Amino acid sequence: MKKTLLYLTGLALVACAPADQDSSSSAAYPSGTAGADVISNPLPSWNEGPSRSAIIDFVERTTTAGSPDFVPVPERIATFDNDGTLWTEQPAYFQLAFAIDRSKMIAAHNPELAENPLLKALASGDKEALANVTEHDLVQLVAETHSGMTLEQYQTLVANWLDVARHPRFGVPYSALIYQPMLELLEYLRAHEYKTFIVSGGGVDFMRVFTEDVYGIPPEQVVGSMGETEFEIRDGVPVLVKQRAINFVDDKEGKPVGIARFIGRRPVMAWGNSDGDLAMLQYTMGGDGPRFAGYVHHDDPDREWAYDRGSHIGGFDKGWDEAVEKGWTVVSMRDEWAKIYPGEDLP
Amino acid sequence: MKKTLLYLTGLALVACAPADQDSSSSAAYPSGTAGADVISNPLPSWNEGPSRSAIIDFVERTTTAGSPDFVPVPERIATFDNDGTLWTEQPAYFQLAFAIDRSKMIAAHNPELAENPLLKALASGDKEALANVTEHDLVQLVAETHSGMTLEQYQTLVANWLDVARHPRFGVPYSALIYQPMLELLEYLRAHEYKTFIVSGGGVDFMRVFTEDVYGIPPEQVVGSMGETEFEIRDGVPVLVKQRAINFVDDKEGKPVGIARFIGRRPVMAWGNSDGDLAMLQYTMGGDGPRFAGYVHHDDPDREWAYDRGSHIGGFDKGWDEAVEKGWTVVSMRDEWAKIYPGEDLP
Repeated sequence: MKKTLLYLTGLALVACAPADQDSSSSAAYPSGTAGADVISNPLPSWNEGPSRSAIIDFVERTTTAGSPDFVPVPERIATFDNDGTLWTEQPAYFQLAFAIDRSKMIAAHNPELAENPLLKALASGDKEALANVTEHDLVQLVAETHSGMTLEQYQTLVANWLDVARHPRFGVPYSALIYQPMLELLEYLRAHEYKTFIVSGGGVDFMRVFTEDVYGIPPEQVVGSMGETEFEIRDGVPVLVKQRAINFVDDKEGKPVGIARFIGRRPVMAWGNSDGDLAMLQYTMGGDGPRFAGYVHHDDPDREWAYDRGSHIGGFDKGWDEAVEKGWTVVSMRDEWAKIYPGEDLP
Repeated sequence: MKKTLLYLTGLALVACAPADQDSSSSAAYPSGTAGADVISNPLPSWNEGPSRSAIIDFVERTTTAGSPDFVPVPERIATFDNDGTLWTEQPAYFQLAFAIDRSKMIAAHNPELAENPLLKALASGDKEALANVTEHDLVQLVAETHSGMTLEQYQTLVANWLDVARHPRFGVPYSALIYQPMLELLEYLRAHEYKTFIVSGGGVDFMRVFTEDVYGIPPEQVVGSMGETEFEIRDGVPVLVKQRAINFVDDKEGKPVGIARFIGRRPVMAWGNSDGDLAMLQYTMGGDGPRFAGYVHHDDPDREWAYDRGSHIGGFDKGWDEAVEKGWTVVSMRDEWAKIYPGEDLP
């Protein structure tokens, strides 16, 4: 994903039609497991093709004892962007949908906040008004809707939202829109003792609510954008309180910075889907020994979306050119994925 | 440990007598393993006593299926301060000794820097001059000696220093001065599927050079103070460059912040040795269910050091009072540790 500031480039927040909360009664979290045969029958939702072959070849080369490309277990670090790489990011980043729902509720109870032009625009869904929303507005919105509460309170709100919110196109919980082939890739890597990390421009406190259940990735292996927090003792209970100030934006050139800061090792493999991931892929490929860079290409308008160059979301221009030039793996979702989501694919 | 700013309270940097580099030819890194019998014969270097009993009781309660205090594996997070908790911090933080060696070398090659009063004081070892060193001076020193280089270059310097530097009292590599009983505790916890983390005021890039070899703690489980870094492509190679600006000080109230930011889960167990660790221990104990807070008390002047209240380093006043009041575990190094270091204890 590409997040110019904290979350998005600011346009086309038109995802926010009222969600149909009746169209699915499934649990918010799918199982996140790809099945037991992960080694004998790897990547079952990947069609035979160049990407599947490249992955299997790389993993076998780097994990077979005696191979010239063998990588010791502690160095087997694989990093994944989240939005657009592990789950859908259309028609808007899912975290933005959460922030919009929060701001509507807040506005309904705070007349003075309701006059805020951004809140009005978000509440109205008016495209022209939304087109005037600036990045600064959105950072302010995130601060407005998230700060002042404890980390635990915030994460309770996120968990509740994930339970009740439904995706505007598919009518299912957002967490049902993770990519089945990527789940299988995560499991396949872990079965070969790779440690899997998320490195996303999304908010780390937001993602950690669901990554363990949904992807099998524990909180301590999630790197993301973050605000400042402060330690307080409230009514005798030690808590962390979210602040308005932003500490770190884990996007573009921030991704290698986040990797060095949180992981402290250069990845052996990295996956993304946009120019926002390019620096992470460059950093990964810049290390010695075998390295793998993969891009998920959104070219399936029927089962998911088709977008890349010049898109308001997930722009994929420089990354595409570099991937082609350097022979990195670029996955065609349309041609190489037999299945998109863990449930039935819904056109 | 207590680090008022990045590294120390500023006084008594008298550790810096010329190191005797001939007195030991041992490798810089001890094995970091406590032996195979970690479950059947736990904590062999701990004397029978209240601390050993409390640890074993807690670990058994939290890891035995069916126990009312059972903690699921993913939530078994144990955090450890480093300086004074996992290794010696006397007569000065080891990272400071590194910074002093660096600054001497830099001063020798840069006449204008050599006029810097701080560098002069450090080079002279003059106690009165050292007493006037301010915290700001030291942050500047750290910036001066560490910034501008790539992360990999910096860590090569640290690794080399660990190979050649010798501790002024014991004449052994600094990494030989890790505490054998704490190594055994780390292994004992890991054998019970606890995930062990360092949460230290020390610099994260410094610690990650040795924590995996010395403690069996990989870089991604080390939380510490950190400067800003920037992603650059230098001569076609993607690198991270250390900057002068400080991003985060992982001390005192910063420790719970660091835990939330890097780990994303409240620990079940936490260990420290000073007031700098108190907020981490408070935060740990503030969670629901079984929690364990432990303090290492430096009361052994013969085999290590004795210091606590009012000490220039590792001040242990408020933490001591709270530990006594709340019945936290306080380990007497003198009485409860049969052995201090992995090698022979040296008076």
